[in-house]
Amino acid sequence: MRGMRSLILIGHGSHLNGESAVAVYRYADLIRERGLYDEVIEGYWKEEPSLRQVLKTTSSTDVTVIPMFISEGYFTEVVIPRELGLGHQGPVPAGGVARVIGGRTVRYTLPYGVHPSMTDVILARAREALPDYDPQDTALIVLGHGTTRNENSNKIVYHNAQLIRDAGHFAQVEALFLDEDPKVGTWPDVITAPRVVVVPFFASEGWHTLETIPEDMGLTGDVTVFADHAGGPQTVYYAKPVGTHPTVADVILHLAEEASGSLAQDGDVERGHEHAWQALLDRARRGLRLGELLITPDSGVYEIRHTLDEGRPSSELRTLVTPEGVRDSIRHDDGGDHRPVHTLRNLPRGWRAVLSEPDLRRTLHYVYPAVVEETYAHTCHTLRATPWPTTARRQTGIYAKVQKATPEQVEHVAGDICKSCLRTRLWAGEKLAHTFFDGVPGGIPCAEACTVIVAEVREEVSGKRGQAGGHSH
Amino acid sequence: MRGMRSLILIGHGSHLNGESAVAVYRYADLIRERGLYDEVIEGYWKEEPSLRQVLKTTSSTDVTVIPMFISEGYFTEVVIPRELGLGHQGPVPAGGVARVIGGRTVRYTLPYGVHPSMTDVILARAREALPDYDPQDTALIVLGHGTTRNENSNKIVYHNAQLIRDAGHFAQVEALFLDEDPKVGTWPDVITAPRVVVVPFFASEGWHTLETIPEDMGLTGDVTVFADHAGGPQTVYYAKPVGTHPTVADVILHLAEEASGSLAQDGDVERGHEHAWQALLDRARRGLRLGELLITPDSGVYEIRHTLDEGRPSSELRTLVTPEGVRDSIRHDDGGDHRPVHTLRNLPRGWRAVLSEPDLRRTLHYVYPAVVEETYAHTCHTLRATPWPTTARRQTGIYAKVQKATPEQVEHVAGDICKSCLRTRLWAGEKLAHTFFDGVPGGIPCAEACTVIVAEVREEVSGKRGQAGGHSH
Repeated sequence: MRGMRSLILIGHGSHLNGESAVAVYRYADLIRERGLYDEVIEGYWKEEPSLRQVLKTTSSTDVTVIPMFISEGYFTEVVIPRELGLGHQGPVPAGGVARVIGGRTVRYTLPYGVHPSMTDVILARAREALPDYDPQDTALIVLGHGTTRNENSNKIVYHNAQLIRDAGHFAQVEALFLDEDPKVGTWPDVITAPRVVVVPFFASEGWHTLETIPEDMGLTGDVTVFADHAGGPQTVYYAKPVGTHPTVADVILHLAEEASGSLAQDGDVERGHEHAWQALLDRARRGLRLGELLITPDSGVYEIRHTLDEGRPSSELRTLVTPEGVRDSIRHDDGGDHRPVHTLRNLPRGWRAVLSEPDLRRTLHYVYPAVVEETYAHTCHTLRATPWPTTARRQTGIYAKVQKATPEQVEHVAGDICKSCLRTRLWAGEKLAHTFFDGVPGGIPCAEACTVIVAEVREEVSGKRGQAGGHSH
Repeated sequence: MRGMRSLILIGHGSHLNGESAVAVYRYADLIRERGLYDEVIEGYWKEEPSLRQVLKTTSSTDVTVIPMFISEGYFTEVVIPRELGLGHQGPVPAGGVARVIGGRTVRYTLPYGVHPSMTDVILARAREALPDYDPQDTALIVLGHGTTRNENSNKIVYHNAQLIRDAGHFAQVEALFLDEDPKVGTWPDVITAPRVVVVPFFASEGWHTLETIPEDMGLTGDVTVFADHAGGPQTVYYAKPVGTHPTVADVILHLAEEASGSLAQDGDVERGHEHAWQALLDRARRGLRLGELLITPDSGVYEIRHTLDEGRPSSELRTLVTPEGVRDSIRHDDGGDHRPVHTLRNLPRGWRAVLSEPDLRRTLHYVYPAVVEETYAHTCHTLRATPWPTTARRQTGIYAKVQKATPEQVEHVAGDICKSCLRTRLWAGEKLAHTFFDGVPGGIPCAEACTVIVAEVREEVSGKRGQAGGHSH
């Protein structure tokens, strides 16, 4: 019998909009439904739970981490391993990287996009676009972005094109790119078959798949007929990007299973984590206010709602009954803006949720990611604060320049952003003597500057802050 | 025996900084200490309580309203009477304007700056600058701004100069101006006396008194010696502005007393107002959450604090014991920014107040101005909502253009601003079934768009919104 195990899906996320996280959410939901892992958790570079927090939110000692990226590059090889504290930098070997971190065995895999079974996803997308295709007269274009500063995508596109070519699935198979040669616009010179299926090797539907590619190829829809081509009429069938195909969930599970061989697999309940949540539930059973949230026990279940909605008849509120329903309801504030930081004092109102005890745990994780774990650690004096200079020194790439920020600049930015946050900045020397475990709803520690602060300090150092949009990150 | 009576001091206020209101606060405090009025309330064009709310926050049926302006003009003759609902526009007669509004007798006076006793304030400021002056060799400059679009200040400056000249207090008395002839920079041509006292006829210390005037006159401090002047050395003594002199409190009281003759004086408790507050106190005696405020009765007194600070030991909080102490503590948010709208969800944390029942009333007025009165009226179905088009039509001057705003523009602005506000926008058709009187802390009605919305809609119509500072109003 296998032990307890957790799966983490890592996305890039965004300070600006919530669309970036949606693909990760969807795959997490799909995999969760299959019940193969005791929990499936999402983590983000620019949302919460952050890369710095996500490991401590897992309830087991056996954790597999999948980077939800289409190709290898800066994020999968530098940022994610660094922020997770893997002690690894650079290319990840085929079997992944395994480390023991704070009592947890953590396996970090290659991004899903480089997994061999992505070939099948490309073929599945092609078949969706042209179900009854004839291998004799149909060509396939696997369309990649091309290698950029952050991602190294051409190798895997060539590789998949070669495999499909070798298997004889199509009369012709070509790898073309948006930003490097051979460019996508050259397709009429390259493709001679009368029918062409184009599969974008992209992570998600977006500007490139919706605008750039159709424009560069002259497409007018899912099916475009080019009647006047020199070699005779050609019809182009435009498929959806591979990264949003439901079978990517299977790719993720393959990756996870292959990685799990690399260290002994005997996952158990992570004690510290369980202690924190038992302490929380113990409080919740007597009724609890946590930040802007009111938790009320009611004959075996729990009701949660915004504290400002206390006392409102249930009929006036939208009633939710699943953790994911709550997650989706609190992703935007009451003005419809994205909430990358969950402890900002802008939890939306107008809803309530009725939840079992296990669902309460998962829901609180969604509403206030890592808050229970970090606050409990603080009460046990085991939460270590990371002072700003340490956070700044860790930054690379475009964020390396935050090391130049003066203490006044950091304080100026923090004053602006953190004033709306529930947390108390231990990383800036602030003291927090009592927490919601002691009945103080707003008592939540902040162990280190979040990525919003890092990004805003970068703007401040660049002299760009206070300009249009500077505040809306 | 005189009846019960209320005094209201009206200031301009500011959406951007809290300095503008400070002078009004200080005079209100001074007059309050004298105990001549049962209450002294501040009201503002751009802060709260707003001109639209302030009358309903008075507890008596006898109300005298003093515009805290240095001269007559657009605000005292157009904006304030209109927003108060006085049914008067244009110059205010010497005895003021009296009207019965919603069961209250309201007397509206001239601005304090045009009161005859301001001559004494000018002399007092001159004596402070040069206590032992000799009328034979000392000149006085009464320095005004000059007439602008909004204020008509030159007449009163000339008038005061003439009175002081006639009384023979100085060897020479001249009226000079910043923005009209005779300009302040011409003083060396005009003044021949070896000693000159300059008294700025300005409402408050600010850019003009601190920068423009010293620059235009060549002053280097409170006392400046000009050794090389053609007619021999001259010494300039630079006084503080008249508008901040403590005796302005006497001017205000003179104005108020003179106005009170114009309608029968038999002030009594305003019933509707008293009902609202008795209902509030009835709730408070059982403990109450009002917006972000937690009110806890404790053996005859009340403790209030931020709900997020619930349960924090008193020793960790700053303890306040006066309504004015609370008022001053909540004027800025936790990031130090000014709070023109008190129902925004940014009440600062870290304090508590221990208050008697009468002081609780006054404190709640400061923390959430007009909220008790308006919310109680809402529960009694007597709060009338003012739809946006009505608010827009009322606007004049630079705000008249908000009438051009489309409903989408108004909604866009409101979505942005109001999402952080506790109030429910009845003026936009939103429904509010339960209030804090029913135990719903966040249940507070918004009867009409506030001046922040009006100002932001103006920016939106002008296409200036979203630029630097657009959000920080």
